[in-house]
Amino acid sequence: MEKLTLDAVADMAEEDFVATFGGVFEHSRWVAERVARARPFASVTEMHDMMMGAVEAAEEDEQLALLRAHPDLAGRAALAGELTAASTGEQASAGLDSLTAEEMERFTELNTAYSMRFGFPFIMAVRGADKARILAGFEGRLGNDRHDELLRALGEVSKIAWMRLLGLVQPAATGKLTTHVLDTAAGCPAGGLPVTLWRLDGEARERVGSFVTNDDGRLDAPALAGEAMTAGTYEWVFECGVYFARASRPTAAPPFLDRVPLRFGISNPEAHYHVPLLLSPWSFSTYRGS
Amino acid sequence: MEKLTLDAVADMAEEDFVATFGGVFEHSRWVAERVARARPFASVTEMHDMMMGAVEAAEEDEQLALLRAHPDLAGRAALAGELTAASTGEQASAGLDSLTAEEMERFTELNTAYSMRFGFPFIMAVRGADKARILAGFEGRLGNDRHDELLRALGEVSKIAWMRLLGLVQPAATGKLTTHVLDTAAGCPAGGLPVTLWRLDGEARERVGSFVTNDDGRLDAPALAGEAMTAGTYEWVFECGVYFARASRPTAAPPFLDRVPLRFGISNPEAHYHVPLLLSPWSFSTYRGS
Amino acid sequence: MEKLTLDAVADMAEEDFVATFGGVFEHSRWVAERVARARPFASVTEMHDMMMGAVEAAEEDEQLALLRAHPDLAGRAALAGELTAASTGEQASAGLDSLTAEEMERFTELNTAYSMRFGFPFIMAVRGADKARILAGFEGRLGNDRHDELLRALGEVSKIAWMRLLGLVQPAATGKLTTHVLDTAAGCPAGGLPVTLWRLDGEARERVGSFVTNDDGRLDAPALAGEAMTAGTYEWVFECGVYFARASRPTAAPPFLDRVPLRFGISNPEAHYHVPLLLSPWSFSTYRGS
Amino acid sequence: MEKLTLDAVADMAEEDFVATFGGVFEHSRWVAERVARARPFASVTEMHDMMMGAVEAAEEDEQLALLRAHPDLAGRAALAGELTAASTGEQASAGLDSLTAEEMERFTELNTAYSMRFGFPFIMAVRGADKARILAGFEGRLGNDRHDELLRALGEVSKIAWMRLLGLVQPAATGKLTTHVLDTAAGCPAGGLPVTLWRLDGEARERVGSFVTNDDGRLDAPALAGEAMTAGTYEWVFECGVYFARASRPTAAPPFLDRVPLRFGISNPEAHYHVPLLLSPWSFSTYRGS
Repeated sequence: MEKLTLDAVADMAEEDFVATFGGVFEHSRWVAERVARARPFASVTEMHDMMMGAVEAAEEDEQLALLRAHPDLAGRAALAGELTAASTGEQASAGLDSLTAEEMERFTELNTAYSMRFGFPFIMAVRGADKARILAGFEGRLGNDRHDELLRALGEVSKIAWMRLLGLVQPAATGKLTTHVLDTAAGCPAGGLPVTLWRLDGEARERVGSFVTNDDGRLDAPALAGEAMTAGTYEWVFECGVYFARASRPTAAPPFLDRVPLRFGISNPEAHYHVPLLLSPWSFSTYRGS
Repeated sequence: MEKLTLDAVADMAEEDFVATFGGVFEHSRWVAERVARARPFASVTEMHDMMMGAVEAAEEDEQLALLRAHPDLAGRAALAGELTAASTGEQASAGLDSLTAEEMERFTELNTAYSMRFGFPFIMAVRGADKARILAGFEGRLGNDRHDELLRALGEVSKIAWMRLLGLVQPAATGKLTTHVLDTAAGCPAGGLPVTLWRLDGEARERVGSFVTNDDGRLDAPALAGEAMTAGTYEWVFECGVYFARASRPTAAPPFLDRVPLRFGISNPEAHYHVPLLLSPWSFSTYRGS
Repeated sequence: MEKLTLDAVADMAEEDFVATFGGVFEHSRWVAERVARARPFASVTEMHDMMMGAVEAAEEDEQLALLRAHPDLAGRAALAGELTAASTGEQASAGLDSLTAEEMERFTELNTAYSMRFGFPFIMAVRGADKARILAGFEGRLGNDRHDELLRALGEVSKIAWMRLLGLVQPAATGKLTTHVLDTAAGCPAGGLPVTLWRLDGEARERVGSFVTNDDGRLDAPALAGEAMTAGTYEWVFECGVYFARASRPTAAPPFLDRVPLRFGISNPEAHYHVPLLLSPWSFSTYRGS
Repeated sequence: MEKLTLDAVADMAEEDFVATFGGVFEHSRWVAERVARARPFASVTEMHDMMMGAVEAAEEDEQLALLRAHPDLAGRAALAGELTAASTGEQASAGLDSLTAEEMERFTELNTAYSMRFGFPFIMAVRGADKARILAGFEGRLGNDRHDELLRALGEVSKIAWMRLLGLVQPAATGKLTTHVLDTAAGCPAGGLPVTLWRLDGEARERVGSFVTNDDGRLDAPALAGEAMTAGTYEWVFECGVYFARASRPTAAPPFLDRVPLRFGISNPEAHYHVPLLLSPWSFSTYRGS
């Protein structure tokens, strides 16, 4: 499906806007209704901020109703095929549509324990997660106090809404992905180092582009920018062995560091992700920079 | 082929020893001859150290003869099938037996330039390397001064001998691979974090084992030890997303760091490799520790 | 004043125990009363955990009364000399007894704003802090929601109680301070590196000891252990220039890294603080390890 | 003494140029003579590169003569007051004019051992170093092979010449010192963090300036630039405690990281020094960036 531009969103009739975005928050059209007149939005980030602002400004009763409008993960509604299309896709992407009997039992237990403790269902933004991460989150959050968990549940609702919005609207072209390689053993930028960027989707890997760092250790242009910048899981592969070989730096056989993968997630395609590599022949680090 | 134990090496008749290890240094039986009476060796590391000691103690003429006994990489001898079996295997493992005409021409140019400049052929421990790394090494080392390059060439001879020795003799069972995960955002060990260790061989990946960190952020036992500890390329995959989820730590969707691979090489299976992970939700580092 | 041993604490009559520790929580003897029979305590850490357990198990009314028993920072009670001795010393150590008129006005404003917003006074463990940090904490916490701020205020009460306990009871001799220096450019421990440990108290510096790293890059024994391990601010000074010079590693003039100070706080003298240095000629890092 | 501008250097008569810069390389006017006509120089860096180019292009005999023109460290010439003014000042700055009898004996032993082994005196750029670093360098370099040590000695000559040039010529105004603070626990820039820059000279400390990081975690302008950028030892002091307090981040009492000093040397005032801080409440790192 073609995504809507932010301009198109700005120009929609109010009822079309609500029809289109009423399901971004599960069974809770009122969120879209309350922000319809706040248009135009300069970015999906702003649109999402506005919607979450409406949620946060709502009475606790409304917030609880919003939480309670969510289905159990791998629960009865899922089994009965009664989920919204969005929920169905999300749960399937995390493998929750193909649980073993034992796993199903564990989910049922946890769902019951959780909703008895907090009075609303366990909500988690599961798109792209796997069962181990979901179960760990379930177990971890069962120990929270109610106030923290209510905030946390709203945080997960926020992430679900964010991913649904990204499925509907083309982000503003403000995002980019950059890197910088510094040789911390030599105290200088690592130039001439080949880098490949991969996009990962489950077991599949797609090569996005191949680059070589310039004299300042950077790429000449962002590896991703504008429309090419999409949310997802990525991996830099830095050819450190080639760099050290060209610098005639002796290494072991095989080298301790040769082809160095750095895997990271991009959640906001409208933001700047700077994901650098601080490298020596025997150590490296990375971080989300700015 | 079954590898020899260090005990068996100690007990060999001198002529068998020389026959077996005479080819560890290309066409240079004298190295084995000079260390035969230094047996027994407590480790392959010691055996190799002794052999390299003999090389370093040799006259420069002998050292140059040793260097000149090596074939060109992807050179005439290789084309004519005149390499030693060891060299043939090493060159093939790096893809040098299947160069395009253009690549062949580049290697020929570089071989000629190098041997004219230094008076001996370009030597590189190529097992496990690829063409890009070999060419980078070639280009980088052409710029060295002669003294440095002679030392560097002997360093590569040392690495080739090391890998050949590891092919012949079973290492002492002193090596091990350990890790430690520290949560630098929380200032504590990261316990309960699932880790998988993979062994990589070209495009192939073999799972070596799956572990979970204990309360001190360590594995209960080394991931590799004794015979299981072999030279090669390995990858830890840390399930950081599971760890953060269990700790109820909010992350982005997808998380910036979820499944974190750390790829590294083990060159000496008799040594201790400590390859830890310093982790926060937005940064990580690693290093060869002790 | 001589500190009490844990044994002496175990043997005190209940009324003596309450008399001695009744002021650990400001004007709130009931905390000491509720844990008196939980003796003996194996450590000050355990004693503190028990006392905080009593606080957390108390009704919200009692918790609020505990918070409200605290004086304003730099407030009327302080001016009037009506603080407990403990509070007087704590506020003085942070310079709150010598504010300018302007600073006093700022504190008054913030105290008023805070107590109107939350219904209890602003509480902060100020011993050893300075005005800038206290004001920053004030400003930052004014933005919290009430639930979070109540927990945060109890967290500060916990820290005040902890420091008061350490003033009264000799900690168990389980704590120690260790380090480890790794050369990340060379991939090996940094042996033979001189290190000095300093204890800082305001502008004063006292040399605790001088050490040299061994072949594994560690000190032969903890730099602090047992009674010598006290809470406070410390600084390692690593003579990295000496290490690089001995290794004949070329550096700039002056070197980028020569004498490297690492300043850190020890809050729990019963715990193990591992504060290592990962070092290359052009970078370093540290972290609280285990 | 007023330093010469690069323009003034360009305009000097050749004999004045040689008279002024003939002593930059100890008793070796020929270096200045060979570069006099290469003027103008765009920077002291270029001037120094040219001079070192002349040294590297010289015959080995000339290079050895240059090395041999240097006095022993703390040697007879120093005792007899026969050093050049430059050498006298350099040796005094490292405390070599006030050795104990025992230290003097150690230096004499090392000087003798070194010059017997290599045929030239031990040379080290000692300005700003201390005895421990000098002795460590002495001991470390005695183990080098002659070729490496000859190159290393020329490297020290290069550093001495560099520092002498900086004493004579005003550097080009291209240098700057910048920083960047990233919160690796929160994955964002650390804004609003107070930083002070100090210049260190032996035991003395002079405050250069006080700054606060902006929303991107950077200073609004370089902390040093143009004429203010001079070679020497500096220390950032980051008020991390203030930053964490403002962010309402709970810390220990005292915090593990509060006031964090980062000490580093600037050797080239014409270069860009980017010295950032990667910070979490329990870890930090720095590196020479670009």
